Amino acid sequence: MKISSMRIIGLDPGLRNLGWGVVDYENGRLKHVDHGVIRTSEGALATRISALFTELSKIVDVLNPDLAAVEETFVNTNAASTLKLGHARAVCLLVPGLRGLPVAEYAPNTVKKALVGRGHADKQQIGHMVRVLLPGVAPSASDAADALALAICHAHHGPSASIQARVVQ
Amino acid sequence: MKISSMRIIGLDPGLRNLGWGVVDYENGRLKHVDHGVIRTSEGALATRISALFTELSKIVDVLNPDLAAVEETFVNTNAASTLKLGHARAVCLLVPGLRGLPVAEYAPNTVKKALVGRGHADKQQIGHMVRVLLPGVAPSASDAADALALAICHAHHGPSASIQARVVQ
Repeated sequence: MKISSMRIIGLDPGLRNLGWGVVDYENGRLKHVDHGVIRTSEGALATRISALFTELSKIVDVLNPDLAAVEETFVNTNAASTLKLGHARAVCLLVPGLRGLPVAEYAPNTVKKALVGRGHADKQQIGHMVRVLLPGVAPSASDAADALALAICHAHHGPSASIQARVVQ
Repeated sequence: MKISSMRIIGLDPGLRNLGWGVVDYENGRLKHVDHGVIRTSEGALATRISALFTELSKIVDVLNPDLAAVEETFVNTNAASTLKLGHARAVCLLVPGLRGLPVAEYAPNTVKKALVGRGHADKQQIGHMVRVLLPGVAPSASDAADALALAICHAHHGPSASIQARVVQ
């Protein structure tokens, strides 16, 4: 069986701003599907995480991706921030994981290198390359651009390996 | 309305061992309901978190608690461990949170103080007090004993405030 088309969701975890972006990868060509940012403001942690989970579940159910790519967290020197990020990241792994989708993880530098050609590109360059690779798309939030960048990175790097893993499972 | 009975689930987060314990608090008396440990072994993080979520959801759906108490994480000096704990903790907040239950958080020292009378009690003392307060119950795993201790602590400290919060919401 030749798999010529797949839909990928990229997820940039954050408790306050969780970026998501979906692309189709068909016969070696990228097509933008949708993107956005799920925002939670101050409030009880359980309520905020539940809101992230519920919103992301809706997006995944509607857009129905085949694969997910999540940013591998930069382990911060601030333990409290690391813990918060861990909470948001769990949601990003959980929502596709519960649906049996293969979930890949990419370090930020891998994503940057895949898009810009070097590991220390800044957010502006990432945003620029996302607009170049997905013509007509201009995500206003950098979290959504980062999420699309993750999806693009996974389209170029990961799908064959992940699909294989999925078939084998 | 006088609320004379409530069911409390205590949760001790961990990616490898997630302890849970449920007690009923009726007219100032504690009654043991059930306890256990959800274990995940090595594997993809998304798969392990999904397993924790699915198992804990089943337990909550069957035992139907009114309130939840989760251990406030000790922020570790090891950032990678902190992040992992954040992932497991998110599941503990999420499962009751999605069902609209009020979720309280307690620092380990508060739980120890509530049960043993001082904040630096060891695990053995906690286990002993759990057996004293819930006669006939002898959790073999310390994670389950800690979870029961959390539920007991919440029964003694939290319910009136939490119930109020729930009514107000």
